[in-house]
Amino acid sequence: MAKLRVEGFTISLDGFGAGPDQDINNPLGVGGTSLHGWAMPTRTFQKYLFGNDGGEVGIDEDFAARGFRNVGAWILGRNMFGPVRGPWPDESWRGWWGDNPVYHVPVFVLTHHARAPLVMEGGTTFHFVTQGIAAALAQAREAAQGKDVRVGGGVNVIQQYLRQRLIDEMHIAIAPVLLGAGERLFEGINLPALGYACTRRESSPLATHVLLTRQ
Amino acid sequence: MAKLRVEGFTISLDGFGAGPDQDINNPLGVGGTSLHGWAMPTRTFQKYLFGNDGGEVGIDEDFAARGFRNVGAWILGRNMFGPVRGPWPDESWRGWWGDNPVYHVPVFVLTHHARAPLVMEGGTTFHFVTQGIAAALAQAREAAQGKDVRVGGGVNVIQQYLRQRLIDEMHIAIAPVLLGAGERLFEGINLPALGYACTRRESSPLATHVLLTRQ
Repeated sequence: MAKLRVEGFTISLDGFGAGPDQDINNPLGVGGTSLHGWAMPTRTFQKYLFGNDGGEVGIDEDFAARGFRNVGAWILGRNMFGPVRGPWPDESWRGWWGDNPVYHVPVFVLTHHARAPLVMEGGTTFHFVTQGIAAALAQAREAAQGKDVRVGGGVNVIQQYLRQRLIDEMHIAIAPVLLGAGERLFEGINLPALGYACTRRESSPLATHVLLTRQ
Repeated sequence: MAKLRVEGFTISLDGFGAGPDQDINNPLGVGGTSLHGWAMPTRTFQKYLFGNDGGEVGIDEDFAARGFRNVGAWILGRNMFGPVRGPWPDESWRGWWGDNPVYHVPVFVLTHHARAPLVMEGGTTFHFVTQGIAAALAQAREAAQGKDVRVGGGVNVIQQYLRQRLIDEMHIAIAPVLLGAGERLFEGINLPALGYACTRRESSPLATHVLLTRQ
């Protein structure tokens, strides 16, 4: 059966998945971009984010690449889609990723504020879901047409799906940085009690990669 | 100048330095011993804990060995010394480590309940300090005679010294296990704000080792 997956979600040594004070200049919160030192040089990120050929191969690339394999739809929290809070003032915010976003499949954005679907170049359409995580998952599964659904984040959205035991597997990267404040991925989450275990671990010079699997 | 160091303190992927429900059968809390899969096979731990010759060498051993180098005294929280809570009912509890403990230097145990010093075989004397962390550190520095002082833990004691910026460097190992509950080492601690940064990172098949240094 198709899976619900978290991929390439990076936390700091002190457990934070994003820094504090997210705004338009700090999409991952203050200091948050330092989390992705392992990902940015990879062939996958160079291609998806910048359209470059080349980039690093190896353990980091292996994990980056698996994150995009067999993904038929994404689910994002509203704060991952952008810095706008509260009701949409207009339709001008179209995501962080330009006219041709990295997704190339339907993306379901969890929000409390309805908005018409936003069709982008390259196969990405942003759908705005106001009925909660179960509705978003049902719509994403249908849109994925048998492929997996990837939960992009942020921390709050991953936690909501984890607490319902809906996530099948999570690839988490641990970066050698300290953030000090922000959102802790596993705050208030008892992973063994929810049935998760660490089933794989590999380390590159830039990050420790672990796979957490629901048993 | 002599340093105040944390060495070989292991946390789980979800950030816990000990499991829940410590008692005489679970000195590190339930599941806590799984943290030390990297340390137990090392030559240093085999020698110090079991008196064995042999044991593994490599990255894990390098970090285990550095933890005992140039250490002239230790500081422990009372719960690391044993499972007894409240006033000492008698003098019968003499630590987890038998007649000849692993320390071989003076050990200062933080407690609210006075007790006479306890002289063990092999150079270890447990001194019980009721005047708080600053007094324990002053006594440990004097006893160390110019060598470093090692804070053994637990989480609460390390946090108290961190909040006062008294720790010079910390070697933390991250083990590929999930504990789900217990004491989180970095709960409520903003390491960058306290002046700490990750200055070294090495990974073995069993753990990720990082050095956090006060700048």
